[in-house]
Amino acid sequence: MRFTSPSAHVSEADVVRFAKEFDPQPFHADPQAAKNSFFGRLVASGWHTGAVTMRLLATGGLPLAGGIIGASGQLQWPAPLRPDSDVHVETEVLDVKPSRSKSDRGLITTRSQTIDGEGTVVQVVEMKVLVWSKSQAK
Amino acid sequence: MRFTSPSAHVSEADVVRFAKEFDPQPFHADPQAAKNSFFGRLVASGWHTGAVTMRLLATGGLPLAGGIIGASGQLQWPAPLRPDSDVHVETEVLDVKPSRSKSDRGLITTRSQTIDGEGTVVQVVEMKVLVWSKSQAK
Repeated sequence: MRFTSPSAHVSEADVVRFAKEFDPQPFHADPQAAKNSFFGRLVASGWHTGAVTMRLLATGGLPLAGGIIGASGQLQWPAPLRPDSDVHVETEVLDVKPSRSKSDRGLITTRSQTIDGEGTVVQVVEMKVLVWSKSQAK
Repeated sequence: MRFTSPSAHVSEADVVRFAKEFDPQPFHADPQAAKNSFFGRLVASGWHTGAVTMRLLATGGLPLAGGIIGASGQLQWPAPLRPDSDVHVETEVLDVKPSRSKSDRGLITTRSQTIDGEGTVVQVVEMKVLVWSKSQAK
């Protein structure tokens, strides 16, 4: 199974606002200072990329009855998210494992790639997500 | 090497505000609806826990010259973060690998546990972080 989310625009103001609250490093929070940094320009905090990805998954990108409850995962940021990008998420379900002890639930493994407007993959998350069998979903 | 961050308070309003923007599921965004959810009460989005952890690391919890630039990692949320908690982060440096191709940098592996006021571990992140040798840090 594969799912493609709608896309979202991430502006420079979004990047700076998130960074000032959660990741106040110059290359995320200060467009001027970012020019002299490793990245050479302002880029989004990886946790901002993760948060935007979550919004896209929770609002149509991964339609799971009962919600998206992540337990653990592997995270890669192969390239930084640059401001004024339109991003979307492509998700593949890699595995489905019914719970051994509880018949109403299971764990699925999803692989979500977050892709910017130029086709660059800026985040890959493989996540184990708790799901309910159809009759139990509420 | 081990580092302990300062602590941060995460209020119910913080949890709801983050969730409305980034993870608008009822168990994160709506205190009333959350009572009938899997969690039985409002809990923070895992990405909120991650973002608060990043703030604590970037503001004293992991003092790296040149900043904290994560490349990839493994993420676990063994318990949800409940609102009105004081959280702090304990970080251990597990490994240091100089770059083979670039003498001015390397990758370290860090393991950060985010711990609530009752001592419950709400997040564990093992992250590969890019670092610079002392003379190159700016």
